[in-house]
Amino acid sequence: MNTFGNALKLTTFGESHGEYIGGVLDGLPSNLVIDESKINEAIKKRAGGRNAFVTPRSESDICEIISGVFEGKTTGTPLAFIVKNTHQKSKDYSNIKDIFRPSHADFTYFHKYGNVDYRGGGRASARETLVRVIASSIVEPLLRDIQVKSGVLGVGGIVGERVDFDFANKSEIFSLDKRKEEEQKQCITQARESGDSVGGVVLVSAKGNLLGLGEPLYGKLDAEIARAMMGINGVKAVEIGEGIKSSSMRGSEYNDLLDKNGFLSNHSGGILGGIANGEEILVKIHFKPTPSIALPQKSIDKQGLEQIIEIKGRHDPCIAIRGSVVSEAMMKLVLADMILLKNRREQ
Amino acid sequence: MNTFGNALKLTTFGESHGEYIGGVLDGLPSNLVIDESKINEAIKKRAGGRNAFVTPRSESDICEIISGVFEGKTTGTPLAFIVKNTHQKSKDYSNIKDIFRPSHADFTYFHKYGNVDYRGGGRASARETLVRVIASSIVEPLLRDIQVKSGVLGVGGIVGERVDFDFANKSEIFSLDKRKEEEQKQCITQARESGDSVGGVVLVSAKGNLLGLGEPLYGKLDAEIARAMMGINGVKAVEIGEGIKSSSMRGSEYNDLLDKNGFLSNHSGGILGGIANGEEILVKIHFKPTPSIALPQKSIDKQGLEQIIEIKGRHDPCIAIRGSVVSEAMMKLVLADMILLKNRREQ
Amino acid sequence: MNTFGNALKLTTFGESHGEYIGGVLDGLPSNLVIDESKINEAIKKRAGGRNAFVTPRSESDICEIISGVFEGKTTGTPLAFIVKNTHQKSKDYSNIKDIFRPSHADFTYFHKYGNVDYRGGGRASARETLVRVIASSIVEPLLRDIQVKSGVLGVGGIVGERVDFDFANKSEIFSLDKRKEEEQKQCITQARESGDSVGGVVLVSAKGNLLGLGEPLYGKLDAEIARAMMGINGVKAVEIGEGIKSSSMRGSEYNDLLDKNGFLSNHSGGILGGIANGEEILVKIHFKPTPSIALPQKSIDKQGLEQIIEIKGRHDPCIAIRGSVVSEAMMKLVLADMILLKNRREQ
Amino acid sequence: MNTFGNALKLTTFGESHGEYIGGVLDGLPSNLVIDESKINEAIKKRAGGRNAFVTPRSESDICEIISGVFEGKTTGTPLAFIVKNTHQKSKDYSNIKDIFRPSHADFTYFHKYGNVDYRGGGRASARETLVRVIASSIVEPLLRDIQVKSGVLGVGGIVGERVDFDFANKSEIFSLDKRKEEEQKQCITQARESGDSVGGVVLVSAKGNLLGLGEPLYGKLDAEIARAMMGINGVKAVEIGEGIKSSSMRGSEYNDLLDKNGFLSNHSGGILGGIANGEEILVKIHFKPTPSIALPQKSIDKQGLEQIIEIKGRHDPCIAIRGSVVSEAMMKLVLADMILLKNRREQ
Repeated sequence: MNTFGNALKLTTFGESHGEYIGGVLDGLPSNLVIDESKINEAIKKRAGGRNAFVTPRSESDICEIISGVFEGKTTGTPLAFIVKNTHQKSKDYSNIKDIFRPSHADFTYFHKYGNVDYRGGGRASARETLVRVIASSIVEPLLRDIQVKSGVLGVGGIVGERVDFDFANKSEIFSLDKRKEEEQKQCITQARESGDSVGGVVLVSAKGNLLGLGEPLYGKLDAEIARAMMGINGVKAVEIGEGIKSSSMRGSEYNDLLDKNGFLSNHSGGILGGIANGEEILVKIHFKPTPSIALPQKSIDKQGLEQIIEIKGRHDPCIAIRGSVVSEAMMKLVLADMILLKNRREQ
Repeated sequence: MNTFGNALKLTTFGESHGEYIGGVLDGLPSNLVIDESKINEAIKKRAGGRNAFVTPRSESDICEIISGVFEGKTTGTPLAFIVKNTHQKSKDYSNIKDIFRPSHADFTYFHKYGNVDYRGGGRASARETLVRVIASSIVEPLLRDIQVKSGVLGVGGIVGERVDFDFANKSEIFSLDKRKEEEQKQCITQARESGDSVGGVVLVSAKGNLLGLGEPLYGKLDAEIARAMMGINGVKAVEIGEGIKSSSMRGSEYNDLLDKNGFLSNHSGGILGGIANGEEILVKIHFKPTPSIALPQKSIDKQGLEQIIEIKGRHDPCIAIRGSVVSEAMMKLVLADMILLKNRREQ
Repeated sequence: MNTFGNALKLTTFGESHGEYIGGVLDGLPSNLVIDESKINEAIKKRAGGRNAFVTPRSESDICEIISGVFEGKTTGTPLAFIVKNTHQKSKDYSNIKDIFRPSHADFTYFHKYGNVDYRGGGRASARETLVRVIASSIVEPLLRDIQVKSGVLGVGGIVGERVDFDFANKSEIFSLDKRKEEEQKQCITQARESGDSVGGVVLVSAKGNLLGLGEPLYGKLDAEIARAMMGINGVKAVEIGEGIKSSSMRGSEYNDLLDKNGFLSNHSGGILGGIANGEEILVKIHFKPTPSIALPQKSIDKQGLEQIIEIKGRHDPCIAIRGSVVSEAMMKLVLADMILLKNRREQ
Repeated sequence: MNTFGNALKLTTFGESHGEYIGGVLDGLPSNLVIDESKINEAIKKRAGGRNAFVTPRSESDICEIISGVFEGKTTGTPLAFIVKNTHQKSKDYSNIKDIFRPSHADFTYFHKYGNVDYRGGGRASARETLVRVIASSIVEPLLRDIQVKSGVLGVGGIVGERVDFDFANKSEIFSLDKRKEEEQKQCITQARESGDSVGGVVLVSAKGNLLGLGEPLYGKLDAEIARAMMGINGVKAVEIGEGIKSSSMRGSEYNDLLDKNGFLSNHSGGILGGIANGEEILVKIHFKPTPSIALPQKSIDKQGLEQIIEIKGRHDPCIAIRGSVVSEAMMKLVLADMILLKNRREQ
């Protein structure tokens, strides 16, 4: 249950405050070129410490590929990589080690496993998403001409109206709408300054040679995307195409008609019957507010005693910002898997 | 890719207009009592022909268990069942056999497989969901005291404010809110009479001994639910707990605090870190409007020629109604699977 | 655990004395031609009742494909098939229903599942191998130019010295060596007449475009073949190439040297490092004697009381004969799976 | 395809001459005590350099657990470990880098992947078996009272008649028969001194609370053992219980009868119908002679030109000796997996 994918499997390991985190990618074709600069770029994009809107923890992570690559190319054997956890500061957490942080996994892990790694979430920490981001940049050559992009659509209810992935790439908060960026930044700043946090919504797009990707009936492309996205820390809703709006529409409004030049609309968000129809795939991913806040909160400890907890660590005020990088990574992993599954059928 | 589940696997087969549809359940413990009346009840609940709000096709389906049960109990070997397709009328479809029905899977299946079963969707038809409903009623004893309920929250944008699962059970449209039911019915009637259709949103709840269900990190309970629900025909969005509202909330509003009596709120919808925290699991599933409508629509045929299509068959005007039964079934299948996975770890 | 294969999955169901047995093949490419005469030929080859050397039960089985085929070709959706169990005679078994038949699965199934289908082995019966044989004849077009052949090498210690698959095909006992056939037949006849049974050894060969099939490290071709063969009812040993003789050889004798025309010998039996090297794959499969014998045997019943059992049913005196057909089928299923796995990697 | 197991999954990575080899164990229950001294003991047992009968390469390997353990106990999250490859000497191989070593995987890997890691087998090297041995010592607490033992039965055709696992444990060549040990040693010495190698046969035994382990029909205990063993480098045959002798026996000789005290014989080797019957499980594993020999051998290079190769490296003269440790490890991994699978069914 620490493995993602069908034909291309990513197995991850490591805790936020252990010595290493890492992953094993199994199923990669041989002779794929590994571009370490791309990997480092992806790590940097996800990293904190860049500006005032994400965690001040400066994660200067270095990915070490320890198997599966020979002379710069994949060998067809499992590609394993590890990243040393250099910035763990266990002392940050010692004062709260026995209290369940509200809306964190402490409570459920404790009850499921009978133990809790109090040093910052352990395996449940979003630190593990670094492994996903690295893996996605390794598999990127499999996507060929498919372009996957991401950005932040909304923050704390301030939702962009335009979608500009190029702008998002330059924005400190990956905002998709230049005209809303400032307001969204203020919302984050204000939350952080008041010891609070905000939620946000991310948009991921995929374009290119997508037609035919997806495996019915229990490997549908939209179902796999939903699983991939809902499995990211803090995600509470996933929409594809019109998403929740679909449920209040009429068929005559919603249906994507066709003429000889192709589809006349894309309410479906690029997926029909679980299979990509070649149009742009559009997914919205809703992140809850960061659960770690500095404001005092009621909770209980492992003995069941009531406690007031104030979480002082260095946390992202809005997990959706870095979450957009992770969402993009998951989309790439899903598509790479589906590409290999499709190959298999074609003789 | 026609298999659902990890420890409890459901493999389904059959097309809407083939001779049989059916399924194989593998991983069931032995000596589980099989109650055929429960199975028939579930079939009936999903069936069309009951009233004016669903398809007039009267599917009087009979489930035949052909292996895995001996003297009324499971033997621990795979339980297989088949249902004869008695009501297929292939002639209904012959006039449109070469035209891609808008927002159906015809287009993508044709491009993926190089063929299309023009007799009504083939494998992509929602007829397959009958297999899921039957399977869910077979695995129900595994759930023990866990209660799974469902109902229709909204239809065409008319959204209920109260949630009353008992009322839903009696409602012809499974409406959760007595005060909105009439308006919702009118919306459906009007859509049907104008040759159109409407979308709808379903709510599924699970209560009981849930604490600890779910497997991190790529088998999270919420991720598995999202996959299960997004894989149902016509679903375009899945929300858990606060769902899309989470992305506009603050941490101080959203976080579920605890006192010695337990959680003080349930914004999380019963899942933290991918594991059930024991609170009610609440999932919203958004269905698009039925794609088959009688109004004329632009499309193309297999040769790429433009055509006008009018779909005359007997279709549900709102797939969310019967979709609520399927959503409930998928929740049961996910939970049963998670229960077996949890057992495995406990020595 | 009732599913075989990785990229091509066969899920089987059914008990020897249930109403149907059958299987679901998932992962088949679309547009594969289904030749029902080939299926019937395979059924007949495996069937009893043909001569004095196999069970006199005349299994005139009819395979009904109930999904996944449209207009004579696979659709890419799961291909399901069922076979009605017409010749079950439950009364044959009633006198021994509470006694564990020696060297049968009764004892272990009873202790594992807390129940026993006393009507003839239930799920553990070799009747299930019919499903494997049918499936293998369906997937045969995937093998293209690869020829898989089988025959009986030895019976009760009378081992052939020549290998003639054409002769085996005509032999009533599938004997590979014309000069030994008569002696082998007498051995079987004598065992049957004395209420006893004999073991036998089967040889399976695969030739053709095999180079590169097999997936390291836990999907090695030889490991998958060993699993497939050892999983057939009654198999107690599997040898590849030189097999057990390897362990008494020297490297200088054993190693397969190469010159510009290829390998100079084939001690490896066509597999190196778990991957086919293009030479003939040669596998020996050792079957124990049929456990059901008419001679009186000591056993116990479910209450633990000592009993004498005499098994009167109509049984094969040597399961290796029909076992050769099943062994050939398993080889085809393994190879078809490996072919699809190989496709997946190749872009 | 680099993952072994069903409920307990071992994913391995690393090449013989890469920087690290390692593994990820997923599915371990939480709160299992990790005893590092046991791990080191297992590493030492498998290691070369101890005496004149195995490779003089002194592999002083150190296993570093990098995730899944907190305060000496498993956390229920994936347990990952790495071992640095300190003794790789790539120069040893440079003179033969373009020649296919006879009976090695070079030829097949080159044709499958289009590349060869000439530094000593890469992923195909038996170095990977270290990961299996480490993993097996980690999972050992899951086996509880089950005792798994191994030893060398035969070397180059000199086969022991007595089975004494205690003696094997002290023997430099793990010989099971004190009276044959000297002769077996001489056989190895003579082979090594003449630049040659010899094959050998290993016996593995499991005793204890085994009844009910194994999953029909495609997860049979014997089939999983066969796969596990045949997947070890150099194994060419696997026998269970009477093994190849079964095929020349009569039912009246072979069948294991029962009285009120249990089974009267164990020809079955502890497995009936794919499920453990509680008796001792006995498996024979036949290893071919070490393929790397110093004697000149005919081969070809990547260009297809004929070459004479003399392999000068430091190799085991008989891989069965260290192979016995690996065989024992695989048995433990199979049994641990089956124990978790069995738990799952039991409510």
